[in-house]
Amino acid sequence: MSVEDEASGIICAPPFRHSTIQLAHGGGGRAMRELVDSVFLPAFAGGVPAPRHDSAVLPAAHGRLAFTSDAFVVRPLFFPGGDIGALAVNGTVNDLAMAGALPEYLSASFVLEEGLELATLERVVRSMADAARAAGVTIVTGDTKVVDRGHGDGIFIATSGVGRIEDGVDIAPSKIRPGDAIVVSGDVGRHGVAVLSVREGLGFENALDSDCAELGSLVRALFRAGVVPHCLRDLTRGGLAASLCELALDGGFDFRIDARKVPISAAVQRACEPIGLDPLYAACAGRCILFVPDDELGAALGALAAAGAEPAPIGVVEGVARTRPGRVELETALGASRLLELFYGEQLPRVC
Amino acid sequence: MSVEDEASGIICAPPFRHSTIQLAHGGGGRAMRELVDSVFLPAFAGGVPAPRHDSAVLPAAHGRLAFTSDAFVVRPLFFPGGDIGALAVNGTVNDLAMAGALPEYLSASFVLEEGLELATLERVVRSMADAARAAGVTIVTGDTKVVDRGHGDGIFIATSGVGRIEDGVDIAPSKIRPGDAIVVSGDVGRHGVAVLSVREGLGFENALDSDCAELGSLVRALFRAGVVPHCLRDLTRGGLAASLCELALDGGFDFRIDARKVPISAAVQRACEPIGLDPLYAACAGRCILFVPDDELGAALGALAAAGAEPAPIGVVEGVARTRPGRVELETALGASRLLELFYGEQLPRVC
Repeated sequence: MSVEDEASGIICAPPFRHSTIQLAHGGGGRAMRELVDSVFLPAFAGGVPAPRHDSAVLPAAHGRLAFTSDAFVVRPLFFPGGDIGALAVNGTVNDLAMAGALPEYLSASFVLEEGLELATLERVVRSMADAARAAGVTIVTGDTKVVDRGHGDGIFIATSGVGRIEDGVDIAPSKIRPGDAIVVSGDVGRHGVAVLSVREGLGFENALDSDCAELGSLVRALFRAGVVPHCLRDLTRGGLAASLCELALDGGFDFRIDARKVPISAAVQRACEPIGLDPLYAACAGRCILFVPDDELGAALGALAAAGAEPAPIGVVEGVARTRPGRVELETALGASRLLELFYGEQLPRVC
Repeated sequence: MSVEDEASGIICAPPFRHSTIQLAHGGGGRAMRELVDSVFLPAFAGGVPAPRHDSAVLPAAHGRLAFTSDAFVVRPLFFPGGDIGALAVNGTVNDLAMAGALPEYLSASFVLEEGLELATLERVVRSMADAARAAGVTIVTGDTKVVDRGHGDGIFIATSGVGRIEDGVDIAPSKIRPGDAIVVSGDVGRHGVAVLSVREGLGFENALDSDCAELGSLVRALFRAGVVPHCLRDLTRGGLAASLCELALDGGFDFRIDARKVPISAAVQRACEPIGLDPLYAACAGRCILFVPDDELGAALGALAAAGAEPAPIGVVEGVARTRPGRVELETALGASRLLELFYGEQLPRVC
């Protein structure tokens, strides 16, 4: 029963007997039907071709298909600028967009902990619906399981997505070429710091929001401008540094990055310095790096800016390392240079 | 590092520093790369078109697409006849098959609990690889998250799947027609009783195995025999009774089921009676019901039997209820009749 229904006096489904999640809500019986009827279907409505059937059936369309999947376990569930629901939708939308696909359909599977407030679930589900609408995708199928108290952590969400890749679009790490300009789509590190701040009570809660956002619209803006990047990668766990290191290691490329050109907000700088966090490794949730042919750099920056981003060229692909793993050389503010390395883990666990 | 690599003395990745899962294994850094390199890629290899990129890119193909998603939280992780890995692969394969799709590609997202034995994860991953091979699907993408000790339960897995639906195939609850024969593909209730047995130490562990299995091969066998069922539904939580009640309620159909014709093994009967479980509501993990036109019943039974199943016709679609919800009437062994009802939850939580 949505808030709107309640206000209008129209009751579409029997009211819940409980205000918290019970094991029965994952049991496949009446309690689960009520949960689906009153929470999931109203929020995700319009997108379910065959409600309650085992699979969603999607119309035929031409082209290759991008297919991706993520699990989300962020703690706390709500943080400045977003929540686990927005993160789950945007994270999967972004993975599709990074393959050059038009994100179309999402699935959402929930692992709920017994005792979770229904109001919390409803808030997360509304946020997912809003994020899906903003990204132009439809949540068409899903699943709900409930684990007994003490064996989960409120809400875990696994989202998967499919999207179409137009003919002629071939965006992949293997397409990176020496001379490519490396561009970041906006300032980095805000998601990690926003989550850290609210989790640890560091007092930056009002100073900055997570960058949690969908990136599909940026990719569409590039395509409309006739720019097809060689490669795209969204920045998540491990931040800008991890994404650069992964691409360098996987493809054997050498990148040169100018630290002075990496956009970092003053709030992120102020938050990171006293506790020894490196903003280059702080998680993002709505930023990507782009590898574009040097002669398309101007057009790419213009298209991204016109779409509302604040892109910055931060470096260049120097070459392909033949006899050793690729590496990322960072020119620091003082003019010195050092190699970026993959950390062993995250600076901050459970950030997405 | 796979067992084969170890035996041949070839070491493809640095060995783990830990024999248990650490938070860093979900952190997006070196530890996660090692986990992917040594556990996931060797098991799922061959199926990853662009390893480590954000999405898998699937080749273009004609036809509609079935898309489905499930979360798996079964406890214990291993049970007679299966484990959470086989369950996760088969569950998603079966949801695709129930839409009449040819299951093709799966994703797998893991939520691991800090402290999980790596050997346990490896065993589950091997089981997933085996199940995928048996079902003819490829695991092409995934994700790994780690939650701190006490906030998970070893392993949760969310799988999603996509498959193609051939032109002319239209299998859905809305296609059920009065007069359709209702067939169950084999004996019911074994999965629920197998899990219960090992969880509660009831002593049936050696008496029966879960029915955990893929159903795609049965659907293919039907198609080869020229039988296109009106509807298919796999039996999971809530067993045969829940699936029948759901279809009756959703579509407004009345079904008549003959309890004497429902195949239930002697072991399941023996296990259920003393503890008051109803086998009709006990979970299955490799059984489905089929709605077939009466004049195709013989061909359907023949095709299923030839594919190794032991199908049984158990009832008929009596009609469409116009002025009340559809219902399932059960003729009991004594010749009486009663209505099957959806339970509020599962008899046995966390069974899948």
